[in-house]
Amino acid sequence: MKKTLLFITFLFTAFTLKAQDSLMIRKFFDEALVNGQCYENLRYLCKNIGPRLSGSEGAQKSVVWSKKLMDGYGFDKVYLQEVMVPHWVRGAKEQGYIIDGKTRIPVAIAALGMSVATPKEGITANVVEVQSLKELETLGESVIKGKIVFFNRAFDPRFIETGQAYGTAGDQRFAGPAAAAKYGAAGVIVRSLTEALDNYPHTGATGYDPKGNNIPAAAISTIAANKLSSMLKLRKLPLIKFYFKQSCQHLPDVKSYNVVGEITGTQYPNKFITVGGHLDSWDLAEGAHDDGTGVMQSAEILRIFKATGYRPKNSVRAVFFMNEENGHKGGLKYAELAATNKEEHIAAIETDEGGFTPRGFSFEGVSGSFLKEVNQNWKKLLEPYEVDRLVAGGGGTDIGPLKEAVPSIILIGFRPDSQRYFDIHHTPNDVFENVNKRELELGAGSIAALIYLIDQHGL
Amino acid sequence: MKKTLLFITFLFTAFTLKAQDSLMIRKFFDEALVNGQCYENLRYLCKNIGPRLSGSEGAQKSVVWSKKLMDGYGFDKVYLQEVMVPHWVRGAKEQGYIIDGKTRIPVAIAALGMSVATPKEGITANVVEVQSLKELETLGESVIKGKIVFFNRAFDPRFIETGQAYGTAGDQRFAGPAAAAKYGAAGVIVRSLTEALDNYPHTGATGYDPKGNNIPAAAISTIAANKLSSMLKLRKLPLIKFYFKQSCQHLPDVKSYNVVGEITGTQYPNKFITVGGHLDSWDLAEGAHDDGTGVMQSAEILRIFKATGYRPKNSVRAVFFMNEENGHKGGLKYAELAATNKEEHIAAIETDEGGFTPRGFSFEGVSGSFLKEVNQNWKKLLEPYEVDRLVAGGGGTDIGPLKEAVPSIILIGFRPDSQRYFDIHHTPNDVFENVNKRELELGAGSIAALIYLIDQHGL
Repeated sequence: MKKTLLFITFLFTAFTLKAQDSLMIRKFFDEALVNGQCYENLRYLCKNIGPRLSGSEGAQKSVVWSKKLMDGYGFDKVYLQEVMVPHWVRGAKEQGYIIDGKTRIPVAIAALGMSVATPKEGITANVVEVQSLKELETLGESVIKGKIVFFNRAFDPRFIETGQAYGTAGDQRFAGPAAAAKYGAAGVIVRSLTEALDNYPHTGATGYDPKGNNIPAAAISTIAANKLSSMLKLRKLPLIKFYFKQSCQHLPDVKSYNVVGEITGTQYPNKFITVGGHLDSWDLAEGAHDDGTGVMQSAEILRIFKATGYRPKNSVRAVFFMNEENGHKGGLKYAELAATNKEEHIAAIETDEGGFTPRGFSFEGVSGSFLKEVNQNWKKLLEPYEVDRLVAGGGGTDIGPLKEAVPSIILIGFRPDSQRYFDIHHTPNDVFENVNKRELELGAGSIAALIYLIDQHGL
Repeated sequence: MKKTLLFITFLFTAFTLKAQDSLMIRKFFDEALVNGQCYENLRYLCKNIGPRLSGSEGAQKSVVWSKKLMDGYGFDKVYLQEVMVPHWVRGAKEQGYIIDGKTRIPVAIAALGMSVATPKEGITANVVEVQSLKELETLGESVIKGKIVFFNRAFDPRFIETGQAYGTAGDQRFAGPAAAAKYGAAGVIVRSLTEALDNYPHTGATGYDPKGNNIPAAAISTIAANKLSSMLKLRKLPLIKFYFKQSCQHLPDVKSYNVVGEITGTQYPNKFITVGGHLDSWDLAEGAHDDGTGVMQSAEILRIFKATGYRPKNSVRAVFFMNEENGHKGGLKYAELAATNKEEHIAAIETDEGGFTPRGFSFEGVSGSFLKEVNQNWKKLLEPYEVDRLVAGGGGTDIGPLKEAVPSIILIGFRPDSQRYFDIHHTPNDVFENVNKRELELGAGSIAALIYLIDQHGL
C-alpha cells in the first residue's frame, strides 16, 4: 500500500515536473517570438558596426557596444576578459587573372585569412590542379616547384548536412598552402568551400607550418575554379598561367576582449552553464550568420530568462568570444581563466552554425547511453518546437578548450538547418538581409529551453 | 526447431528488406543531389515562362512546356486532362491612398484574386478597422454601411509552424469581403497574410457569397496596415479616409489542363500513387515556391526512379494540377476522373508548401495507431535525411477531393520548413532566386523515398 502510494507520488511529481517544464519552455518561446530583441540587436551589430575582424576598429567597437548592450539588460555581472589577438589585414583588393596566351581573364579571388602577401608585382606561374593533399604528395617537388597549386576538390553534395561537406573539403584551405610550400610551390589558390556555384571568393583562415615557408594563398570563386579547371583540361600546361596579387599583412598582436554577461545562480552560483558565439567576423561582410546571430542569441537567452522571471539555480553565462576566425584566442582565454579560477562548469553550448531554423543539438564525446537518456528525458519536450534532434557530434571551436580545463563539462553544439550556411559563409554576402527574424528567434528559444532543462535536471 | 528456423528466416528477411530499403533511399537522394534536374527546370519555368495564373498565356505555355518536359523524360504515359478554369485578370496596377485631410499617402495594395473592380473613379470612404469577422458582426450594418472595412488581425507569431498562423488569420481574406458585403460595406482591405513587416501586398483568392453582393477587396502591405491603424488610432473617424482603385475583371472560363506523367506499375498497373503540386501561380511573380517547386519536384521523382532503375510495383503519377490558386478546378477534375474511371488509389502526396528544407510528412485523418505504425516502420529510414517528422495533419488542396472519390486513399502533405514561406507567398518576391538548390533537391529525394516505401510496403 505504502509502496503504491510512493509510486503514485513519484509518478505525480514526475508528471507535474514535466508539465512545469513544458510551460516554462512555452514561455521562453513566446518571449522570443513575441518580444524578441535579438533581430534588432543583430541589425545594429551588422549595420552600425559591420565587419569585426580581430584587431580591427570594428572588433573594438563591437566589444564596447556588446558590453553596453548587456549592461543595459541589467544582467547580474557584465565584464570583459582581456586577450591578445592576431591582427591580420587584407590590404588592397586582390587581383587574379587566368592568363591564356595574350588574354587575361579576371577572376574573383580573396586572400585566405592569415596568408602572406605576394611580391608587390604579384605572382605569375603555371598552374598544377590537384584534388587532394594526397595527390600533391604523389606529384612531389619535381612537378610542384615554382608553380601555383590549385586545390579544386568540390564539396560532396551527397552529405545531408553541409557541415560534413565542409569538414571533408576543408583540409585544402586549412592545410593546403602549408603542404604546397613544402614542395616549393610559388603560391596556392583554393576552390571556395561551398557547394554553391557563385562568383564570390569564400575566405577563411589557413594555417602555416611554423617551421615551413609561408607562401601566399587565396580562395577562388567556384565559378572561376570551374572555368580555370576546364581551361586547363582543354589547353594543358604550359599555355595556361595564373596571376595573383595580394598585399595582406600581419601587424603586431593587439589587446582585445571576450564579453561576458552572467545571471548568477540562486543555488549554485559557482557552477556554470555557458552559451556563446563569436563576436569577431571576417572582414568581407557584416558577419551576420557568422556569427552575429550566435552572439545576439546568447544575450537574448539571458534576456528571456529575466523577462520571464526565470532565476536559474546555476549561473548562466553568455560569452561573446573574440578571435574565433583566425586564432581562437578568446576560446583559449576563457578556458584558461576557468582553470585558473577553478570554476565548476556543467555544460557549454556554442551557437556558430548560422541563425537558421533550429533542428537540434549535438553532444560531444558522450556515450550512447547518455544520449539515449537525454532523448528519453527531453526529446518530447523539444518536439513541439521541432528542435528535437539530439545527436552525437561536435560542440564548437570556442568552447572546445573547456574540455581540457574542466574535464567533467559536457560540450554541446546548437544545430540549425545547414542547407544555406555555406552559400554565404565567409563571403561579402554574409549580411543582415540574409537572416530571417523568426528563424533567429526560434534558435534563441531553443537554446533557452535546453539551458533550462540542464539547469533544472542536470546532465 | 522448425519454428525457430522460421523465426530466424523472418528476422533475416526483415533485416534484409530494411537494408535494401535503406540502400534504395540513399540512391534516390544521391541522384537528387548529384544529378538533380529540378532546379534547372524550375529556373526555366520561372524565367522563361513566368507568372501562370489560370487562363493566362503563361499558364497555357506552362502546360505545353510541362508535357514536353515529361515526354522528354520518357515516362510511360504523359497526357493532359482537360479542365475549364476561371479567367480572372488583375487589370491596371492598383492604387491606394490613406487620405488625411488634404494629404494623400500612397500605400501598397493589390486586388485579392477573384475580386471585382472598383468603379472607374475608385472608392473613397471612411475606414472601420476590425480584428475579426466576429467584431464585424458586433458592429453591424449601422457602423459598416458605406465604409471600407479594414481587416487588420496580425499573424500570431507564437505558432511554431507558420501555416498555422496563416490558417488562423486567413478567414479575413477568404471570407472577410463576403461578410462585410452583408452589412453594406463599400469595399474591403485586408492586412497581408504574413508575419513579415514588408511593403509587398500579399494577394490571394477571396470567396464571395454566390447570393450576396460582390464588393471590391484588396490586400494591403503589413507596413501600410500598421501605418493606417496607427493613424486611425491617433485621428479617429471621420478624419482618415481611404481610397482605392482597381480594374480587375472576370472573363469567360477557358479550357486548360492538368499535366500528368506516369510510370506504370510492374505488378499493379491499375493501382496509383500520386504526387503533385500546382502549375498555376499568382500573376504578381514567378510562382517559384508557390508552386513551381512542387511541380518540378513531382516530375523529378519519376525521373529519379527511372535514373536509378527503380520500377515501382504500383503506378506512380506526377500530376501538375491547374487552378489551385483561384478555383481548385484541376484538383476537382483529377478526382472526378479517378471516380469515373474507377481507379484504385493507394495514396496521394501533395507538395505545395514551398521548396524549403524537408522536415517530414503529415497524414490526413488517420488514426493514432496508423501513425504509430508508420513511425515504427519508417521513421528510422528517414532519419538520416532529417525528414522524419511523420505527424497527423492536412494533405493539400489539390488532392483533397480524391478522398470523396476514392475513400480508401491516404492523403499526405509534404512538410518542408515553414519559416520563410509566408514572407514571399503571393508577392512579387516569389521568384527563382529565393529557392535554394539543395533544399529543393532534398525535398524531391524525400518524397521519392516515401513513395518507394508506400510502393514496397503499402499503407
